[in-house]
Amino acid sequence: MKLYDFPGPPSPRRVRIFLAEKGGDIEKVSVNIREGEQFSEDFKKINPNCTVPVLELDDGTCISSIDAINRYLEEIYPEPPLFGRAPEERAQINDWCHYINVNGFMAVAEALRNSAPRLAGRAITGSRNVEQIPDLAERGRQRVLYFFEDLDKQLEGHEFIVGDNYSAADIGAMVVVDFATGMVKIEMPEGLSNLKRWYQQVAARPSASA
Amino acid sequence: MKLYDFPGPPSPRRVRIFLAEKGGDIEKVSVNIREGEQFSEDFKKINPNCTVPVLELDDGTCISSIDAINRYLEEIYPEPPLFGRAPEERAQINDWCHYINVNGFMAVAEALRNSAPRLAGRAITGSRNVEQIPDLAERGRQRVLYFFEDLDKQLEGHEFIVGDNYSAADIGAMVVVDFATGMVKIEMPEGLSNLKRWYQQVAARPSASA
Repeated sequence: MKLYDFPGPPSPRRVRIFLAEKGGDIEKVSVNIREGEQFSEDFKKINPNCTVPVLELDDGTCISSIDAINRYLEEIYPEPPLFGRAPEERAQINDWCHYINVNGFMAVAEALRNSAPRLAGRAITGSRNVEQIPDLAERGRQRVLYFFEDLDKQLEGHEFIVGDNYSAADIGAMVVVDFATGMVKIEMPEGLSNLKRWYQQVAARPSASA
Repeated sequence: MKLYDFPGPPSPRRVRIFLAEKGGDIEKVSVNIREGEQFSEDFKKINPNCTVPVLELDDGTCISSIDAINRYLEEIYPEPPLFGRAPEERAQINDWCHYINVNGFMAVAEALRNSAPRLAGRAITGSRNVEQIPDLAERGRQRVLYFFEDLDKQLEGHEFIVGDNYSAADIGAMVVVDFATGMVKIEMPEGLSNLKRWYQQVAARPSASA
């Protein structure tokens, strides 16, 4: 098993944090995204969609979505469970993971990829060039603010996003917060004390620096 | 357990087909989306995001993403497995489910919701109003064509999307094809013989009419 990885961007980080929480150790191969190595012919054989990370399984199968990679890691390293301990808890974590992907992660990505000059013509990851839509960048920023509000509401009275256990939902949401406030400079609004309390707690875990 | 459901739109259909393949039987409650019942105060208590379907579990937990609902049904009705029979197969199905959601389902939804006059101010589902972006509708249509190409390539030499077993990926992709060609009138391009052969096969299953 091999993990094609690169430090900095949010997607590979979601896998590294997951793996650190599991105490798992996998051979890592660096793919220099900053120099465009993901578009090389060699890497296209590993992932025709040209995204990083990729998990290459022992049978040669290559998996590139964060969700699929982390679920596979959950099977290989079952402890501690990060996708839930019982069907009802798993259902809520899966629900929140979906929500975080669509309304958090993709909203920040829309804001960034439809505005940054260095991403002109690259508004969507993948092998095809797609032009930026400035209105979509603006909409993405607005959606991130809504996402912060929703997350704050969910965290009221909860230590973590789903109840009392740290999970894949917390990893996803923490990376979204860092992606938004760090890389895309979307400021977290005043208030939102639940969100801020939760963020301090999850960001202090040793895995957060993975 | 209760399924809040409505005939017609693609999302509830993905759950009904999944359930039909399992031979499962759940109490259904109709939420008339055409008349805006999903925005009623009563339904907001069940799902503050105002989307249908929702699966209400016996402990009162309400789950609203298709992915989380179908994974819960997989736990309740394990046979036949629709999320894979072994870790490697599950990894590929999860990977394709993600791909189909982001590049298929969301592309068609972008095309529809950013152009249809009846959805003005409702470019994204949820409790908040979001204005349409006409350029995004156009981009969505283009992305659906890319999606058809990618699916055709994946189906070369495969009976189903992941190998020889019908799975949640086939359900998702079939519903995307019907959503695109039926509701949004995006024609399937010439050629793409693998996609067309596969579509005929999956659409002929009794579950397709669920």
